Amino acid sequence: VDTILEGSEEQVLIGPQRPFVLIGERINPSGKQRFASSLSRGDLSLLGDEALAQAESGAHVIDVNVAAEGVDEPVVLPLAVQAVSKLVTIPICIDTANAEALAAALKVCPGKPLVNSVTGEDASLEKVLPLVRERGCAVIGLCMDSTGISASADRRLEIAEKIMRAAEKHRIPSEDVVLDPLAMAIGADSGAAVGAMEAIRLIVCQLGANTTLGASNISFGLPERSLINRSFLPMAMAAGLTSAILDPLDVGMRKTVAACDLLMGHDEYATSFLQHSRGGW
Amino acid sequence: VDTILEGSEEQVLIGPQRPFVLIGERINPSGKQRFASSLSRGDLSLLGDEALAQAESGAHVIDVNVAAEGVDEPVVLPLAVQAVSKLVTIPICIDTANAEALAAALKVCPGKPLVNSVTGEDASLEKVLPLVRERGCAVIGLCMDSTGISASADRRLEIAEKIMRAAEKHRIPSEDVVLDPLAMAIGADSGAAVGAMEAIRLIVCQLGANTTLGASNISFGLPERSLINRSFLPMAMAAGLTSAILDPLDVGMRKTVAACDLLMGHDEYATSFLQHSRGGW
Repeated sequence: VDTILEGSEEQVLIGPQRPFVLIGERINPSGKQRFASSLSRGDLSLLGDEALAQAESGAHVIDVNVAAEGVDEPVVLPLAVQAVSKLVTIPICIDTANAEALAAALKVCPGKPLVNSVTGEDASLEKVLPLVRERGCAVIGLCMDSTGISASADRRLEIAEKIMRAAEKHRIPSEDVVLDPLAMAIGADSGAAVGAMEAIRLIVCQLGANTTLGASNISFGLPERSLINRSFLPMAMAAGLTSAILDPLDVGMRKTVAACDLLMGHDEYATSFLQHSRGGW
Repeated sequence: VDTILEGSEEQVLIGPQRPFVLIGERINPSGKQRFASSLSRGDLSLLGDEALAQAESGAHVIDVNVAAEGVDEPVVLPLAVQAVSKLVTIPICIDTANAEALAAALKVCPGKPLVNSVTGEDASLEKVLPLVRERGCAVIGLCMDSTGISASADRRLEIAEKIMRAAEKHRIPSEDVVLDPLAMAIGADSGAAVGAMEAIRLIVCQLGANTTLGASNISFGLPERSLINRSFLPMAMAAGLTSAILDPLDVGMRKTVAACDLLMGHDEYATSFLQHSRGGW
C-alpha cells in the first residue's frame, strides 16, 4: 500500500513497488552551531539554502527541524515550514518533539505533510495523533517507548503494533503511519544492523506498513561513515525499507539509492539509473 | 556449517558466522587478449603477478582459469596451479569445464582446493564429482542444468537439491558443496537481483549450505558496474551469501565487503574494519 504525501505542487508516494523515497535530513541545527545561532536570531536564510540544495539533489521530501537552544519552536517552526514551502514544491516532513510547535506548523504547511514523529509512549500518542487526524496528514511512528529502544526486533514490532492500534483508534488510515524500526550504532552493538533488518522485515510482513529510518545512525562513532551507510542501505532496502532520512548531498549515497532502485526492480529498463549516470549525478 | 579450504600453508573457512570469503577472479583470460596469448605461448608470468596482487589485496582464495583459444588446458592448467601455489599460501579455486584438465590440476594442487564447478547436468555431475570425492576437496555447484538458468528461485533450489543428492551419493560431505545460485544481468531482467536473493535465502534456509556468486554478472552491459556490484553485494550478504568471486583489486568493493562484515556482526568491536581503515585499505 502506498503512503501519499503532498507538497505545495508535488505528490510523493512511499510504497513497496515504488522507487525509494529520500527524505532530506539537512535542515536540523543539532551539531551545527552557525545554523543554530542564525535560527535563534530568527534568520531563515541558511534554511532556505539547504531546502533548495536538497531538492536540487534529488530529495523527495524535506525534513524541517529547528530545535536548538534559544529557539522558540512554536514561533520559529511554522515560519521555517512556510519559508521552505515557498521555495520547494515537494512535501515537507515536520520534525519536532514539541506538540505546540507541531500544531502551529501544521496550520501553515501546504499539502499533506509527514509528521516526524510519534513514539509508542502513551503521552506521545495522545498528544500527536489527534493533530495528525485533524490535519489528515501522515506520521512517522518510532518503535520505541519510555523504556527506550529495545535490541529485540520482536519488541520493536510490538511497539509498532501499539502505534498502529492507537492510530486506528484515532481513525488515522493505516497507510498514513510510516514506521521507523530505528537503527542503533553498529559500533556499540554488533547486532544493530541485523536487528534493524529483522525489525523491518517483521513490520513489512506482519503489518504491511511503509518504513523509514534515520539510516546514518548505524555508523555513529565510526570512521568512514558514508561507506558504512552506503553498505547498510542496500541491506535495509532488500529487507523492505521504503524510505529513509539521509543527506541527499552525499553523492555516493544518491548513487547507491539509484543502484538499489534498479536492483530492487523499481527502475524498469534502468531508465532512471542511465539518466542519472549520463547526467553525472 | 563451515566449508574448510586449504592452501599450501593457510586454511580458509566459509561459513554463516565467518567473515565473508573473497575469491579473486582475475586469473581468467576471457576478454583479456594479452593474457590469453601469453598463456597460449606457455608464459605464466602475468598469471603470477595477478596471483600476488590479489593475495596482497586481501583475496582469501585465488581462482585459476586458463581457458582460451589456443591453450591446451590439460597441460597448462596444472602448470598454472603449480605456479600460483608456489607464490601464494592461500587456497586455490580450480576453474575449468575440462574434466581432464581438472584431474591433472587436482594432482598437483596443494591443500584442499575448491573446484569451480559442477552443474546440475547428469554428465557434469558424473564427470566432476568422482574427482572431487577422490581428492577430498570442495566443489562449487552451479544452480543450472541443460535447460540453462531458470528465472525461478524455486527451480534453482531444485537444481541445488539435485546437486546435493548427487554429492551425497558420491559420499562427498555436504559442507564440501558450495552452491552458486547464479546472478543474471539486471539490465536484461529487472527481477535478477531479487531472484538471486530469493535463491540464496532458499538455499541457506532449506539446505543449510554455503553459497558463492560471480557477483559482477549482475551489472553486465550497464555503465558504472562497480557501483551496481557494490550495491548488490550487501543485499546478497544480508540474504545469506557467504562468499563471492570478484575482483579484490577493486578497492571500493573491498571496502564494501569490510563494511558488510561489520554490519553482519562478523567483525566484533569493528577490529578488522578499523585496522583496514587506518591502513588506507
